[in-house]
Amino acid sequence: MAQNHIQEFRALLQKISDYDSAIALLSWDSRTKLPKKGVEGRAQVLSTLAGERFRLLLGEPMEQILEALADSESSLDEVTRRSFWRMRKQLERIKRVPIDRLEAFARLTSKAEAVWVDAREANDFASFAPYLTEIVEMKREFIAYRDWKGPAYDALLDEYEPDLTMATLDPLFAKLRGETLRLLDQIREAKQPDTSILERFYDPQKQRAFSLTILEKIGYDLQAGRLDETAHPFQTTISLGDARVTTRYLPYFFNSAIFGTIHEGGHALYEQGVDPALFGTPLFGGTSMGIHESQSRFFENILGRSMPFWERFYGDLQVVFPDALGDTTRDAFYAAINAVKPSLIRVEADELTYNLHIMVRYEIEKASISGDARVTDLPELWNAQMKEYLGVVPDSDANGVLQDVHWSGGDFGYFPSYALGNLYSAQFAEKLEEEMPNLWDDVRRGELMPIREWFRERIHRFGGLREPGELVQDITGQPLKADALIRYFEKKYVPLYRLS
Amino acid sequence: MAQNHIQEFRALLQKISDYDSAIALLSWDSRTKLPKKGVEGRAQVLSTLAGERFRLLLGEPMEQILEALADSESSLDEVTRRSFWRMRKQLERIKRVPIDRLEAFARLTSKAEAVWVDAREANDFASFAPYLTEIVEMKREFIAYRDWKGPAYDALLDEYEPDLTMATLDPLFAKLRGETLRLLDQIREAKQPDTSILERFYDPQKQRAFSLTILEKIGYDLQAGRLDETAHPFQTTISLGDARVTTRYLPYFFNSAIFGTIHEGGHALYEQGVDPALFGTPLFGGTSMGIHESQSRFFENILGRSMPFWERFYGDLQVVFPDALGDTTRDAFYAAINAVKPSLIRVEADELTYNLHIMVRYEIEKASISGDARVTDLPELWNAQMKEYLGVVPDSDANGVLQDVHWSGGDFGYFPSYALGNLYSAQFAEKLEEEMPNLWDDVRRGELMPIREWFRERIHRFGGLREPGELVQDITGQPLKADALIRYFEKKYVPLYRLS
Repeated sequence: MAQNHIQEFRALLQKISDYDSAIALLSWDSRTKLPKKGVEGRAQVLSTLAGERFRLLLGEPMEQILEALADSESSLDEVTRRSFWRMRKQLERIKRVPIDRLEAFARLTSKAEAVWVDAREANDFASFAPYLTEIVEMKREFIAYRDWKGPAYDALLDEYEPDLTMATLDPLFAKLRGETLRLLDQIREAKQPDTSILERFYDPQKQRAFSLTILEKIGYDLQAGRLDETAHPFQTTISLGDARVTTRYLPYFFNSAIFGTIHEGGHALYEQGVDPALFGTPLFGGTSMGIHESQSRFFENILGRSMPFWERFYGDLQVVFPDALGDTTRDAFYAAINAVKPSLIRVEADELTYNLHIMVRYEIEKASISGDARVTDLPELWNAQMKEYLGVVPDSDANGVLQDVHWSGGDFGYFPSYALGNLYSAQFAEKLEEEMPNLWDDVRRGELMPIREWFRERIHRFGGLREPGELVQDITGQPLKADALIRYFEKKYVPLYRLS
Repeated sequence: MAQNHIQEFRALLQKISDYDSAIALLSWDSRTKLPKKGVEGRAQVLSTLAGERFRLLLGEPMEQILEALADSESSLDEVTRRSFWRMRKQLERIKRVPIDRLEAFARLTSKAEAVWVDAREANDFASFAPYLTEIVEMKREFIAYRDWKGPAYDALLDEYEPDLTMATLDPLFAKLRGETLRLLDQIREAKQPDTSILERFYDPQKQRAFSLTILEKIGYDLQAGRLDETAHPFQTTISLGDARVTTRYLPYFFNSAIFGTIHEGGHALYEQGVDPALFGTPLFGGTSMGIHESQSRFFENILGRSMPFWERFYGDLQVVFPDALGDTTRDAFYAAINAVKPSLIRVEADELTYNLHIMVRYEIEKASISGDARVTDLPELWNAQMKEYLGVVPDSDANGVLQDVHWSGGDFGYFPSYALGNLYSAQFAEKLEEEMPNLWDDVRRGELMPIREWFRERIHRFGGLREPGELVQDITGQPLKADALIRYFEKKYVPLYRLS
């Protein structure tokens, strides 16, 4: 009997996974290959498949199977039990919301994303505000349908990072902010590196070839993925054996393609490393946004912006770009790619100030969801927070409160994941260094595969079989903390900026 | 009441069309982009979506709507009525076949295609024969479930070319064969052109650039499509505004990419020209395989291999490939790309002998389906037919009866479409020349757009709103005939080979 339910459950999960695969390919294609005039038809197909997927998730068969499985929970195998937990949790978020409200929200965010594009373009927050107001209200409404015990915003955090709460995050961010601002003050006083070398001409074709080389070096399997060009780079997993990376080649800015590729490559290593036996379940993929981001950030920053990494690759890079880098030393290059400078735009921020951008959004999200701030007040609040945290004030809402797409899609609670990624990555890196004493010598010789293997063994292969809290505890023996990242920043910036 | 049924019907058709779009993209990606290790996962997704599409087609909702529409057929608007006819016809082919037999057939052909790949590779017809035997038996079984009045093979012809029968095709093919063999005998005696210039080095990158130029010249809209590389070129329409072309760049063979691209481009012009109002119905696309092929063949052969075409483009081509073509005259090039030589492989055949390859398959299909020939006798039959029609005998079954994929997928009745395409194209071309007296002068000046417009007005825009028989009668004032193609061959080969 239970065996029947398990089989039905797994078949239904596989079907949902197949719809996810089709939707992932349609989305990948939309962002990399789709001809301009195909946009309307594509939206039609995506909406039909998403609707069908939604019906599989919310339909009676799933409800009945979950009820049946609940009765025999203790006897379930681990994959089925963890899949059951994930599906139950996912459904609990929405199952009591009337279907017409869910549909209304889908229509609202679809419209709001288009409005946001125009509003940012026209630097016109007022035109976006009514949509954002309604989105915030509906986020709160949806939480009210649940029997969620804690503060509303915790419910949103939990969607992206299971079990994460403001009670955990507030002190952690406070500490990180304090130490970051302290370092930043010192850096402001120091001699600034010359970053103009990054804005020389870098032939896009050669950027692509170099990006592919680095991807393979870090252990990305090009027989189980591809590298394509897009406007806003992303990593996506289509299905088993098909985890794709995208990047962007700017002819006059070095960082975009190479570090973007390593970043998305880090995500892809995670996806390629998940145990294939989990395919067709909700466990096939990263366990949370934060852990996922820890992989992209580790490879992009801790490895990809490290001196040992460029001790191995800078010579190659000079050969590829003799005109741009022929007269530049490795030290000068290293200083340029690690330059710290408070700026307005999150996606262009350096490693150190990046987390401050996240904290600005975090404060605003908390205040919006709690009702402490009205949407119409957000531009002012944004600018005040930017001034307080980063010491810079946006010249426009387009470069301020309107810069990110997330809120227009209703993604509140997502931003902290980016900072969590940085925190986790430093915490994992300390353990990695401890367990692999030759780590940086290996890197200097270009032997990067042991790093992927270390992460695969401890994180990747589990997919969703471990919650983020379990992972970080199992690997580091500690819960999530800010200390490792702070130590990492100290170790990096004190010598680089010759701080005392 | 009827209005409700029409709306339901259109909604269901749109849904089927959306599944078709997703399946088309998954298939396009499988053949152009999919990483090697993603093959298994892709098969899984495709099978789920195909199964779902199948359920939409064969489910009770469709059955009930079709019944309801049958009652009010005369009051339906044209699009709904023609869509209704197409769906009813499509369903009549399979609706009385037990579902487990349909599934068995899907499994059989899926397996048979893999077996065929190996069998061709190993030149081992015996290993493929049991599968082909079962396929033929099931094709006959499925026809037996229908109340089909005529010969079984006519039912298969009708699937690809509505209303086409052996009674029509037999005399037509006989006449074409007679005239072809007569010309061929003369050509055999004539001086043969030097085709080795086509086997010089043609840089694939430049082949791509030139292919794109020609595509745009014939009127292909690159904002509503793309050109990608693949092993076996094809054209596919993903959705509204998204009709894609693929091609293959052989560094040491000129014809493959350029003529392949023009051929697939001809298909794509048809697809891009269909009235967008037909999107979401079974009428959105070509009306039949034969008419579709008339477009690809017209652009590839009648236009693309014509002297006026190369009077305009040969100079450009020499500039692109100075090493390969610098010492070659336009006349020599024209003679090379139009060389006639009986050969073993259909897809490499010249314009004249191509139809003979089709007739070989046609005779074998008729005999197989009628039961006059057993599958085990097919290699012998094939070789005998090749000898009789083309005067050459395959050196192996791999280069003979095993060369095409079609039968392993159960596609009996498909091959004649290729020859029909040639017949239709010549018939249309005569009308085009009559109505556009400046046609070839325009071509000499590179003004090709009027050709697309002529076809769009008379064929493309209608999509499936006109049956092939209606189209050819409306446009040429005559039914399908062999005369125009025979005249075309005469006009081309008599001067080219200096025949008397």
